[in-house]
Formats: sequence, C-alpha cells, structure tokens
Amino acid sequence: MAGKRLGNQTVRLETPPRIISTASIAGPKEGEGPLGHTFDLVLEDELWGEKTWEKAESKIVRETWSRILEKSGKAPEDINYIIAGDLLNQCIATTFGLRESSAPYLGVYGACSTMCESLSIGAMLVDGGFADNVVCLTSSHFCSAEKQFRFPLELGTQRAPTAQWTVLGCGAVLVSSHGQGPAITHVTTGKIVDKGIKDANNMGGAMAPAAADTIVSHFKDTGFTPDYYDLVLTGDLGIVGKAICDEMVGEQGFNISKKLKDCGLMIYDLNKQDVHAGASGCACSATVFAGHIYKEMLEGRIKKLLLVATGALLNPTSTQQGETIPSIAHAVTIEA
Amino acid sequence: MAGKRLGNQTVRLETPPRIISTASIAGPKEGEGPLGHTFDLVLEDELWGEKTWEKAESKIVRETWSRILEKSGKAPEDINYIIAGDLLNQCIATTFGLRESSAPYLGVYGACSTMCESLSIGAMLVDGGFADNVVCLTSSHFCSAEKQFRFPLELGTQRAPTAQWTVLGCGAVLVSSHGQGPAITHVTTGKIVDKGIKDANNMGGAMAPAAADTIVSHFKDTGFTPDYYDLVLTGDLGIVGKAICDEMVGEQGFNISKKLKDCGLMIYDLNKQDVHAGASGCACSATVFAGHIYKEMLEGRIKKLLLVATGALLNPTSTQQGETIPSIAHAVTIEA
Repeated sequence: MAGKRLGNQTVRLETPPRIISTASIAGPKEGEGPLGHTFDLVLEDELWGEKTWEKAESKIVRETWSRILEKSGKAPEDINYIIAGDLLNQCIATTFGLRESSAPYLGVYGACSTMCESLSIGAMLVDGGFADNVVCLTSSHFCSAEKQFRFPLELGTQRAPTAQWTVLGCGAVLVSSHGQGPAITHVTTGKIVDKGIKDANNMGGAMAPAAADTIVSHFKDTGFTPDYYDLVLTGDLGIVGKAICDEMVGEQGFNISKKLKDCGLMIYDLNKQDVHAGASGCACSATVFAGHIYKEMLEGRIKKLLLVATGALLNPTSTQQGETIPSIAHAVTIEA
Repeated sequence: MAGKRLGNQTVRLETPPRIISTASIAGPKEGEGPLGHTFDLVLEDELWGEKTWEKAESKIVRETWSRILEKSGKAPEDINYIIAGDLLNQCIATTFGLRESSAPYLGVYGACSTMCESLSIGAMLVDGGFADNVVCLTSSHFCSAEKQFRFPLELGTQRAPTAQWTVLGCGAVLVSSHGQGPAITHVTTGKIVDKGIKDANNMGGAMAPAAADTIVSHFKDTGFTPDYYDLVLTGDLGIVGKAICDEMVGEQGFNISKKLKDCGLMIYDLNKQDVHAGASGCACSATVFAGHIYKEMLEGRIKKLLLVATGALLNPTSTQQGETIPSIAHAVTIEA
C-alpha cells in the first residue's frame, strides 16, 4: 500500500515522485508577456507552418513531447505512460500530436484542470510502483478554442469584460521515481461543483467555487494551514474568479489572501495585452508551471506549492440547452 | 510498491482488486437484443422524459450511478474516485450526469476504449492503496452521437455497410479493495496506433490494428498464450474489425480465433436488427460487461477474461481536414 488516504479527497504519497523535467512551447502573445523568457520555445505565429489551427495545436503537442524527451535524456520506451488531454472535441490536439509517440497513452478530460488531473494520476501511478516515468501534458490554442467554443475569429466579435484569453501553448511535466527535482507529496481530487452560474463568458466565476471547495478540502484533509505554503497557485480563475475564490476560502476559515496567485493573471500583462479578465485554457497552468514556476522551485525561491488547476465542464450544446456550468478543481502539493 | 511491471505496457496487480458490483441501463433497441434481459433497466424510449438526447444521456449516467450505489450498498462518501467519460464533446453526458455525485471525479477520454481505460486506472489506484472503492463508468447514446459525429437523424441518411450502431446505455463497475467478485489481475495500456485508414464509416477497420497491437503486447508482456483465457473480448470492432484483428494477432503467432468475441456482435441480433457491421460506442463494452459477462463470471461460466476495449480518437473536424484515424485499445485481465 503506497498511498495513505487523508480525509475524503486527499492522498499522501509515501514515496513522493519527483518532477525531473518540464517542457513548454508558447505562442507569440504569450512570448510577449512577462513570462515569455521562461518558455523553451516561443512561436512566431499561430499556425507554425500548418494549414489549420487544429493541426498547429497537434504540432505543438508533438514538439513539446519531443522536447521533454530530449531535455530529460529519455527515449520513448522509457516512458511508461503519457497522461494527457486538451480542450478540442475528443481531445484531437493530443491524440494526433501523440500518434507517433510509441508510449502507452491514457487520455484524460478535465478541461482546464487537465494539468493537475494528469499530475494527480501520474504521481499515484509512480508512487504505487506502476511506473517509473510518466509524462503529463496538456495544450490549448486560442484560435482553435475560440472557433470551437465561441464565435468564428473572422467575425471579430466583441468580448465580454469577464472573458478570458485562451493560452496558446503546451506544457509537459515528467514525473519520475528516480532523479532530482521537486516532489509531489499530496494529491487532492476535486468533486464536480455547480453553483448555478450560466454565463459562459464568465468561466472564472463559474470555476471559483470548485477551486475554493478543493482548497478547503485540502486543508481539512491534511491539517495544513495556508502558512504551510509559499504559494497557492490557481490555474485560470482570472480577476473575477480569483477574488471569489479568495473570499469563499476565507469564509471557511482559511485566509489565503497573501498566498494566492493565479496563472491566468501572470502569463499576460493585463495592462498592455488587452485580455480582459486574464488568461485561460489548459495550457495556462501547464506553461506557467512548466516554465516560470518550475524554475523558481529549482532555484529555491518557491519551496512549497499548492497547484490548483480548475476546469469548466461544459460545451456549447449544454449552454444552448440552458444548462449551468459544472466545474472542478484538482490540487497537488509540490515541495522542493 | 504495489504493481509489478511486465514488459513495456503491462502491470501485474499484486493485490488484485475485486469487481464487487456492476450496474447497467440500456435503450429500447438494446433491450430487444439477445442480451436485453441482462441489463438492470431497459428504457422505453430514447428521451426518458427529457427534452434533448444530451439531457437524456446525462440522466442515464445519473441513474446508473445511483443504481450502482444502491446495488452495492455504498454511500457516495464511500466512493474514493469516479473515473468516467463519454463520447460527447467535452464529455458532458458524464459531467452533467455526475454533477450531484459528491465524489472525487477523474474525467477520462478514450473514445470507446473508456471502460477499459477507467478500469485500468481504477484497478491501479485500488491496488496501490490510494482508494478502497472506485466507480468506473461510461455512456453513449445513438441519437446524440449521430447528431454530433455524423448527420442529423432527421435526414435519414443511408448508412454504409461497414457502419456500426452506437449503443444507447451506460455501464458502471465498482472496483474495490474488499468484497467478493472477479479480480482484475493485469492491466495492459495501449499505444496510439494509426495505420492510415481515413474512412470514418469504418471504425472497426481503423481500430482493429490497435486491438491487435494491445493483445499481442499483452501476450508478450505476460508470457500468457491464448490458452490461458476462456474469452478474449473486444469492445466494438464489429464484423469488419473483428476479422482484421483476428488475422493480425494470428500473424504475430497467437491464434485467438476460438477465443475471440466482440461485444459489438453480441448486443444486437445482426440478422434482425439492421445495425450493419455491429454495435459501437463507449456503452457497448460497458453494458455487455456490466450485464451479461459479469453474470457469466459470477456463475463460473467464464473464469478468465481478457477485456479489450477499443477507441477511435478522431472527430469530425479531423476527418474534414483529411486526417487519418488514430486508435487505441486498453486491456484488462479479469479472473473469477
């Protein structure tokens, strides 16, 4: 028995797996943002020589996979599982991007919570002795996401003030039983939370209650307080969602105001880049973690991190049918 | 260390988790088929009182979840993880169906391989000590799938002879550390396989090489031969895909002809029910296993089963962009 259950939603990993490498590729807008220098590669345009945005997103996945193998000195046969998914219908960015990967593949769908969902499963499989090396990966692409979830880009539709900008990029994380790097020590798996929000232009607001639920459950399950962490980092709540999450966690008796940051407020310069309420997309937390945060942990500036990626589990059909927005958040504790 | 890796794709579970309960709900056409009496509930129509097919599919998920709790005498808080997904964009059948489930949720996307993917992850999490009870669940719905993947039903479009009929239903399987029932002893995780087939009306043909790849890998990794098994049961290859799979596995030196059956050829009466090349959909292997096969194992008529669910990892956009069909198959050994 490798894991120890704590409370209803958390497991403590007895032999915490290490994050021994990361890789990230980002788009031009992300490259112009304050974290541009932290990505392995910044693209010059959104198509990268491909004919469609979907094919471009698959290429980004394929190249990020190649890059994490190269950076870690691993061959495809060293990787026991790839755990990955994306926002496109049937996760085609991932499945087409990885079709030559030659490694066992477990597809996940957690919307923008995918990075933490894949890290959760990956860490448990390594800790349980089922794998030595797991690559956790996710992507998103502003253009393919807008086309699929909202309006044709060519329409130039006005965006709501609460709207967020889908990150173009891909992040990959290599979780291993051996090697050096920060360790994944706890996994808190979210429940689906639906507080009745229907505005598909306010994803941050819809996801905030799920983030708060998982963060509070994490503290209750583990007995940790916010003081334990240097940083509580949500995925893509944006301005609106971060404020709601902060308040909801506070109401439950945990003051995280000084510890809370959101990847969606870090990757772009909100004063200059016109992204309204911040960034979103699977790649938001994935690239911010794989780029900036991982470096900060390696260099000792962040020692204890609670990474909480959130996802909105809707689609355009459910919105058209008058449904609300079920959301989820998954959290992992990462310690340098 | 709870698992033992065998070869590149397989793990042997050291404390094999038990399948202590299953639940299944099926549609009217499935009810009229030869396995109709094995489902817990057969619906009278495709909408079940809902206004849309998507809402109906979510209701089927919700009710199957309720039913497996009821049948097993478990409360939602006894379930450490629900691992589930479906065919609809962003898996909304599952996420809306489970939004009141109050259990930690891990969303997976493996197309029609979902049942075996969720059983694989679920069995490893239980064997690793991360969970005592995991519900693995998946659904599909003929009408919502046709609408999304092919043509509006109202068009009455002629179907190709190689086309398969998406099963309307949901199957759930409860994997536990304690209790009685057949045990999951081995997990073989598939790689993405793409042999260049482009015909989205021939899913069986596209998926057969993935099934063959995983079955052959399973035999090589474990050292088992086809003699070890009473039954090698694929998910939804249909007439075309089953024949290809049989031949491809044979060419690799493993004769499975006498052991191979396909859920897609069991759930409907192909002589009477006009489903062309057989059944398909996530619910095909899920309901056939949760209904008929589980009963056969409990009653000792099947003792050793290799369950191999296959998925085609495409979407209509990839087909429109001229892409081929990447596929995957995941296998689990279940022993009574």
